[in-house]
Amino acid sequence: MTLALSTTLPTDFADAVQRTRKALSDQGFGVLTEIDVTATMHAKLGAEMEDYLILGACNPPLAHAALAVDRQIGLLLPCNVVVRADSSRPGTVIVEAMNPELMVQVAGDPALREVADAATAKLRAAIAALTVA
Amino acid sequence: MTLALSTTLPTDFADAVQRTRKALSDQGFGVLTEIDVTATMHAKLGAEMEDYLILGACNPPLAHAALAVDRQIGLLLPCNVVVRADSSRPGTVIVEAMNPELMVQVAGDPALREVADAATAKLRAAIAALTVA
Repeated sequence: MTLALSTTLPTDFADAVQRTRKALSDQGFGVLTEIDVTATMHAKLGAEMEDYLILGACNPPLAHAALAVDRQIGLLLPCNVVVRADSSRPGTVIVEAMNPELMVQVAGDPALREVADAATAKLRAAIAALTVA
Repeated sequence: MTLALSTTLPTDFADAVQRTRKALSDQGFGVLTEIDVTATMHAKLGAEMEDYLILGACNPPLAHAALAVDRQIGLLLPCNVVVRADSSRPGTVIVEAMNPELMVQVAGDPALREVADAATAKLRAAIAALTVA
């Protein structure tokens, strides 16, 4: 199992963020949380790093179904989607979503499989839409 | 590996949340995100559920160290800490943190071991402090 469903986009960071939000929305994912990792690391540690954003994406019906199977699954919600500049290739942005199959692997309840598969299909569609946009 | 480092507290929900925030802060974790799952599920789906809060806890030096090893690790940051009422036992609240060893297990880079161990030690200390408080 890979940790990430990912793609790279030949664009600037702001455009990649905007397209990612739209692609997630089109698949029924709201963005519940947002962490500007670059700003946080600078504010807390004085450290410099490339543009790096963590979006917490949640599809309410799927989250509700996962919680109905395993109340502990909130430990892996929402589904993180990272948008980050590729420092080694200027003008390129990496977008990657946490692979929901991770829920099945670590929580171990086979009843999560159906929910995880549905979430994976929607996130794969979002990533695919980014690539062709 | 267990998914959660957890405890149960014989108290009310608001007190459990307040004590959890303080215990995390005492171990160097800031709360970067907060999701009121109960309110979200009610607003989006009209569903009723017990008090359920997801706090996104981040220890900046440890997060920075983890990102230095594996830029993809933002998919598992911040470290979720769930505070939720135990429906089966009124007056009891469950507090559980995502086990940081998950990072090593799923990302597969052994160099994450040291950071994960440090994060686990701090979260265990936070959970232990809750229990004796």
